[in-house]
Order: sequence, then structure tokens, then C-alpha cells
Amino acid sequence: MNVLLFLDYAGVAVFAATGALAASRKQLDIIGFLFLAAVTGIGGGTFRDLIIDVPVFWVVNPAYILVCAAVSVIVYFGAHLVESRYKLLLWLDAVGLAAYCVMGAAKGYAATGSPTVAVVMGMLTATFGGILRDLLSGEPSVLMRPEIYVTAALAGAASFTILTVAGVPLLAAALAAFAVAFLIRGGALRFGWSFPRYRSRPGRRPEDIP
Amino acid sequence: MNVLLFLDYAGVAVFAATGALAASRKQLDIIGFLFLAAVTGIGGGTFRDLIIDVPVFWVVNPAYILVCAAVSVIVYFGAHLVESRYKLLLWLDAVGLAAYCVMGAAKGYAATGSPTVAVVMGMLTATFGGILRDLLSGEPSVLMRPEIYVTAALAGAASFTILTVAGVPLLAAALAAFAVAFLIRGGALRFGWSFPRYRSRPGRRPEDIP
Amino acid sequence: MNVLLFLDYAGVAVFAATGALAASRKQLDIIGFLFLAAVTGIGGGTFRDLIIDVPVFWVVNPAYILVCAAVSVIVYFGAHLVESRYKLLLWLDAVGLAAYCVMGAAKGYAATGSPTVAVVMGMLTATFGGILRDLLSGEPSVLMRPEIYVTAALAGAASFTILTVAGVPLLAAALAAFAVAFLIRGGALRFGWSFPRYRSRPGRRPEDIP
Repeated sequence: MNVLLFLDYAGVAVFAATGALAASRKQLDIIGFLFLAAVTGIGGGTFRDLIIDVPVFWVVNPAYILVCAAVSVIVYFGAHLVESRYKLLLWLDAVGLAAYCVMGAAKGYAATGSPTVAVVMGMLTATFGGILRDLLSGEPSVLMRPEIYVTAALAGAASFTILTVAGVPLLAAALAAFAVAFLIRGGALRFGWSFPRYRSRPGRRPEDIP
Repeated sequence: MNVLLFLDYAGVAVFAATGALAASRKQLDIIGFLFLAAVTGIGGGTFRDLIIDVPVFWVVNPAYILVCAAVSVIVYFGAHLVESRYKLLLWLDAVGLAAYCVMGAAKGYAATGSPTVAVVMGMLTATFGGILRDLLSGEPSVLMRPEIYVTAALAGAASFTILTVAGVPLLAAALAAFAVAFLIRGGALRFGWSFPRYRSRPGRRPEDIP
Repeated sequence: MNVLLFLDYAGVAVFAATGALAASRKQLDIIGFLFLAAVTGIGGGTFRDLIIDVPVFWVVNPAYILVCAAVSVIVYFGAHLVESRYKLLLWLDAVGLAAYCVMGAAKGYAATGSPTVAVVMGMLTATFGGILRDLLSGEPSVLMRPEIYVTAALAGAASFTILTVAGVPLLAAALAAFAVAFLIRGGALRFGWSFPRYRSRPGRRPEDIP
């Protein structure tokens, strides 16, 4: 099986699982699970394919939808077995982020030949599904969490692009970039890695500004 | 008049009305009414046309925009006559949902020939306008309400697709599927129909998780 | 330098700066600055290009991405020098709104030949970046602020379209329309201009409706 195709299914499936876990946290019904799983699983890739102007992947191959549906059912019946669903959600999100940033960079590079576009596509599409999930389910956005998040997607996408431009074979470049992204995000989750945050002062509320 | 064209205009007009009603609840000005009406009315169809890669319907035929504008003005001057604007919003949303899920399934099936894609397009595009409206106006999301919502769109889209694949004429398939979706959502609104919700336990806040 | 190209870069750069300022208000790290700057800077134009079905501008020319990156770094190191970042954000947003509404109308008119589509594209794309920024960063939406906002974009887009249809040369039409939009939004910010808001009564919370 082609490594990119495997990463693609893996990214869709684990993001779908995070959507279903968010649905379980909000105690939605089974169709709510399906909906959030589908939107989270295919959201980033849909956005990617629209921007680089290729046919949307799940329209070409509806098997991705069935993967999301299967994952929703598994989570619906299995989520109560998990000690901390939010932790599981964050770790699966890390796997999805790593898979999607490679796919985004690979498809972006193949479609445009521009390394800059490849890196940006990898960063944006890896984070888009999670952003959609958090917006729709009312979870606090992963973007605003203190640990490193977008950086992991950026590093994975940049690694894949640099290795590919340097002539490294696809399989090696994809696996190395996946590992870079997952280790950075996983380390941030496990050890609380963060960059220095902007210190000056937090924003005041608009109504307090004279 | 072609039944699909009629459903299309009806879906746009009633979703536009729900956008304008949301604007009235937030006491926006007339341009705020226009904006929310346009975004809600054409949002789902825009998304549908981008994904199946056909020209966006209101770019091809700007009359849809004028429909949204006319609806905004009517709501601006008439909304105070209504006892409960939020109830009216929910009922119009039900009509729009039913019209849009048929249109989404029909256009998705015509463009791809895949029943799975048709059902998913119907479900996603019927709910997309309402999701946008609630996000932009800060209303609580219809997705999170306890009664059946996405299910109605899914049932309507599936009915249309099954009937069409079975060879039922367009007019009959469209009307039957519209009725299925509207009766399910209307019954849910009127009688509080809901599926069993996921029971286990609600999600804790992220900061309470050790 | 072509006036439209200049407005395009100016719109991207100042919207990117508002995204970075929102990041500084939320005390994100440098990559959070980059991310919000990129999404805000290129969001409206991406949406515009998808809808009128032309290649996305920053995929064709990745220099726009580098502009967003440069702006983020400048804001990261310079934002503490500013007395009121939220006021600066609103004023830069006004410049971006004025630049983007002209670009949206110009590209929409060039692609479709429809004045209605041109006006709507100008209005939607000028406001889209700011809406995305506020959604992602959790700022109160500019849409809901009491002063005139969408109206400025609408007036600028309409001015450009009317002048262009009337045969006024591109440079004059673009500058005049930019001025109209900026003066309206600037006057609203400076003097609190607003339309009469919808008076009847605010919306009740859904759970208070019998």
C-alpha cells in the first residue's frame, strides 16, 4: 500500500475519532457523532483540495466517508471505556496532525511545485479539521492551548518539503516528516513544551478601552 | 417551474429569513440584516458547488442575491409582528433544511453518480447555512440542540437518493424527500423527538483533567 | 506598479497585521502570530478566488505568504510599543477592508461581468478575513460592533462597480472606491457613526422561550 494513501486514511480516521470523542463529551446522539466525525475527518483535506484545485478526495473516493461512519460507531459504543476522553482526543489529534501535514505538503507540492505553498498547505490543512471540530462542538480551541501545536504541523510540512526537494525518496521523506511532527506535538503534550509566549500584556476587553 | 429550481429558491429564501431573524435578535442594523441573510441563504449552496466543482449558483444567476436582499427588508420591517422570532427561525430553518437536503443530494448525484456522495452532500449542505448563521451571530448552535436535526437532513437526502436510484421520477422523488425531511424535523420541533443521547458522562473542562 | 496589485498587497499586509495583533492580545507564541496573520491576511482573497473559480492568488504567487510572515515578526517585536493594540487593530482592519472590497469587486466583475456579483464579492471578501480572525482568536466579532462596518465594504464595492460600469479608468475608480470605504469606516470608528439599529427588542435566550 502506498505510504501516502495509508497516511491519508490514517489521518481521516483518527481525526474522525477526535470528532466523535468531542460529540461524546457534548453527549450528542449517534447522528451527531457521525456529523462531527465526518466534518473533522474530511474537513482539512476538503479545504486542501479546494485550494489547490484538484477534485475533492472523498467525492472521488467515497470510501473515506464510510471510514468516518465506522469510526463514529466504534467511538459511540467504546468511548465510555476510556478513562479520559479529552486526553485521548488530544493524542489522536496529534496523530492526525502528523499524517495530515505530510499529505498537505505532498499534495501541495505535487500540484504547484512551490516549496512555500507546500509548507503552508501542510500547516493549514493539518490544523483545519481540529479547528472546525472545536468551533462546531464549542470545545476550547486547540489553537489557544499553551503547548506547541501549529509548530508541529509546520515542522512536519517543512521537513517533508525539504527532504523531497533534496531528492529523498517518498517513503523515507513521509515517514521522517510524520515522526518529526508527531514527536514535537507528542512531546508538547507529554512534557508541556511551549515557546515563550508574547509577554507584554494581555488584551483588554474592547469595552474597557477609552 | 422546475421543482428543483423552486426548491432552490425556497431554500435560499427561507434560510435568508432565518439569517435576518438572527440579526433582529441581535438588534443589528439593516446592512447587518442583509449580510446575515445573504451568508445564511447562499452559504450551504456555495459550499456544495465548490465541493462538486460546478460554477457557484449565485455567481451564475445573481437573482438569488436579490431574493436575499428582498427577504431582509421584509424581515426588518415585519419581525416585530412575530410573537416569538426564535420559534419562527427554527421552523423556517426546518423548511430550508428540507429544501436544501434535496438540492444537495440532487446536485451531488448529478455531478458524481455516487449515492454515498449524494447523501453526504445533502446532509452537509442542508446544515451548513444554519451552522454559519449561528457561528456568526453568536446564537447557540442548532447542532447542539437536544432534538433531532442532522438526522432530518440525512433522512431527506437518503430518501431522494434511494428513490432516484430506484428510478422514481424527479418530481415525485424530490417532493417525497422534502416531506420526509420536513416531517422529521417538524416533529422533532413540535413534539421534542430525540434519539437517546450518549449517556456515559459529559466532558470535563480541560483544566479539570489531571 | 499596478494599482490593483498594490491594493492587493496592502490588503493582505494590513489584515495580516490585525491577525498578529489579535495573537498578541491572546499572548500566543510566534508561530501563533504567523498562523493568525496568514489566515487573516489571505482568508478573504482565498474565499474570493474559490468562488469565482480562478487559481488562488497565494498559490500562484507565494510572495503573499512571505509578506504575512514578515508582518508577523514585525508585530511580534513591535506590538508592545503601541498604546492601544485593539484600536490599532480596528484602524488597520479599516484599511484592509477598503483595499479588499475594491479587489473583490474588481476580480468579481472581471470574472463574471455581473455588477451584482461584483458588489457581493467585494462585500463578502472584505469582511471575511476579519470574521475568521475574530472566530479563531475568540475576539468579539467586528460584525456585532455597533458602528457601521459591513456598510463601508458595501459602499466601496458598489462605488467601484458603478464607476467601472460608467467607464471611469481603473486607477481613478479604485482610488475613489478605496477612499469611500475607508472614510465611511474611519468616520464610524472616529465619530461612532451608526445606523439606527433594529429596535423592537433583543432576542430572548432559547431556554426562556415557552
